[in-house]
Amino acid sequence: MPETPPRIAVDAMGGDIGPRINVAAAVQAAREGIRITLVGDADVLRGELSRLEAPASLPIDIVHASQVVEMKEKPSDALRRKKDSSIQVACQLVKEGKADGVVSAGNSGASVACGIFVLGRIKGVERPALATIMPTEKEPVVLIDVGANVDSKPFHLAQFGIMADVLARDVLGVEKPRVGLLSIGEEEGKGNVMVKEAYDLLKRTSLNFVGNVEGRDIFTGDLDVAVCDGFVGNICLKLSEGLARSFGRVLKRELKRHMLSRMGAALSMRSLKNFAQMMDYAEYGGAPLLGLKSILIVCHGSSNLKAVTNAIRMAATYVERKSHEHLAAELTAHTELAQFSRHKA
Amino acid sequence: MPETPPRIAVDAMGGDIGPRINVAAAVQAAREGIRITLVGDADVLRGELSRLEAPASLPIDIVHASQVVEMKEKPSDALRRKKDSSIQVACQLVKEGKADGVVSAGNSGASVACGIFVLGRIKGVERPALATIMPTEKEPVVLIDVGANVDSKPFHLAQFGIMADVLARDVLGVEKPRVGLLSIGEEEGKGNVMVKEAYDLLKRTSLNFVGNVEGRDIFTGDLDVAVCDGFVGNICLKLSEGLARSFGRVLKRELKRHMLSRMGAALSMRSLKNFAQMMDYAEYGGAPLLGLKSILIVCHGSSNLKAVTNAIRMAATYVERKSHEHLAAELTAHTELAQFSRHKA
Repeated sequence: MPETPPRIAVDAMGGDIGPRINVAAAVQAAREGIRITLVGDADVLRGELSRLEAPASLPIDIVHASQVVEMKEKPSDALRRKKDSSIQVACQLVKEGKADGVVSAGNSGASVACGIFVLGRIKGVERPALATIMPTEKEPVVLIDVGANVDSKPFHLAQFGIMADVLARDVLGVEKPRVGLLSIGEEEGKGNVMVKEAYDLLKRTSLNFVGNVEGRDIFTGDLDVAVCDGFVGNICLKLSEGLARSFGRVLKRELKRHMLSRMGAALSMRSLKNFAQMMDYAEYGGAPLLGLKSILIVCHGSSNLKAVTNAIRMAATYVERKSHEHLAAELTAHTELAQFSRHKA
Repeated sequence: MPETPPRIAVDAMGGDIGPRINVAAAVQAAREGIRITLVGDADVLRGELSRLEAPASLPIDIVHASQVVEMKEKPSDALRRKKDSSIQVACQLVKEGKADGVVSAGNSGASVACGIFVLGRIKGVERPALATIMPTEKEPVVLIDVGANVDSKPFHLAQFGIMADVLARDVLGVEKPRVGLLSIGEEEGKGNVMVKEAYDLLKRTSLNFVGNVEGRDIFTGDLDVAVCDGFVGNICLKLSEGLARSFGRVLKRELKRHMLSRMGAALSMRSLKNFAQMMDYAEYGGAPLLGLKSILIVCHGSSNLKAVTNAIRMAATYVERKSHEHLAAELTAHTELAQFSRHKA
């Protein structure tokens, strides 16, 4: 007999567009059998469901939350002052066992802070980290950390690798993920002080650690996990998104410039669309915050329907596969790593 | 009366392809009036010149060097053991006043080490830094440092900004370069410990400092200089190059997939070529190492003819505009910055 499908709490007020996108994504996911709890202004959410003509038979609940964290609000303020915000109520539902995971396209900093303080860290996790799944020429790659931490210690980086390895196995279905350490040269001993020590620690893990990798190795598809500090990872993520967008704009501009090209573009539209899709960051939806007792997936504020829907699917998969249990087990199996860390965490 | 044109020493043995590319680039630059000294195996270089049927009237000299630094060689070893290597002899020529600048596509680490130890630093420069000029949707942007230093101090970052500002003005012709600090949020106070203090220092300079910028701001063209530590910059540079190449490959693959697209691609070839050129890193040739008493431009090992030629042109422009004098003057004008640095350089 199949187990009960996972229940995902969706912070329905979050994001630049807000309820309209989040509710539509929830309806789509519910149609696929994922149980959803929409959290936010109940009137607004009921209105959206009726506007979308969502059948009452869909497994969708609504839980009211009277406050919303604004996109520009300071995370610590939001956490302290807005106890009834949609993101905080969503996290509380998971804490109380009424949901299994959370998805939010709201204020990223506030979502991360809520996740850590309300859901709580798995025992032994020094620093929860944001992982993002990026498209490559072949299979996607997990980049971790993309901004939950700055000024990380080497031991944190080793734990990031262990956590992302579980994500790659459980969610992306990679049997033996190739885990690389992002640095500025492939040889051991290349990099800054932090990376050199993280290298020593990662070597001691049971991971399929392939050593240092460089920026150019991210998109070839020959790597499954790239580990870095959140400062570096956040810059890399935004740089990639920015460059992808610039490519798109320049390509469009160039193709429009000449009559012949316009005709050509019309003919090659199908290929260009496939290409755009491959580079479409919405494909993977959001960034899971790993290391919590449950799962929280943080989406871009500008997420579209596809992105939020995929984030909900990812959260459901993570719960179904019991990834947080695997994650806890792997971290426990690597407890002894800490003793080899010179820069204490 | 015009001044004597600058003389650029070209490490003609460096690079994956070596003399063939470097000599051809030198011939091209010499045709434009730049005086060239080719440094390397004199027989090989004479052979290349004759193969290219270079007229004897071109302003090209040859200086023999009996050794070559291999691409994989450790920079410190190369510096100590290969006193007669082409890169070391090229730098010596500048030191002795027989040339004005150096271009090398050889072992980057060895070139940087040679530049620092043979050419010497401008007084007051704590850490010379590698700047690279990257294409954007509009005008190019200078990214500094892309790998001469790791574990930089905040004061170093401030100096990187001051040096790149001179490059943007003199070489790119930007009147009042917009200088940004690469971080993970635009607001002051975002970033890691190093960046937060570098922000305070950059605010005190006479630069047109626009504050923190994010990875996505690099390619829009709304920025002229982006400042970061060499660890971050090197990863960003290689990530961008890798992503650009992946885009190209995927686009090509997609366009070939269908007959209609193939026809379309043929029609839109001109646009696609313009697009490729815009994203072509060879456009700007190489990375100048700033902060030396002269100029050294480090090219990719895989540089093509266009890249090396452009690097020689950039070196000549830098010398003609007396940029190293401007650089020295700017650094002197900002000497007092050091006293505001909490993390002493």
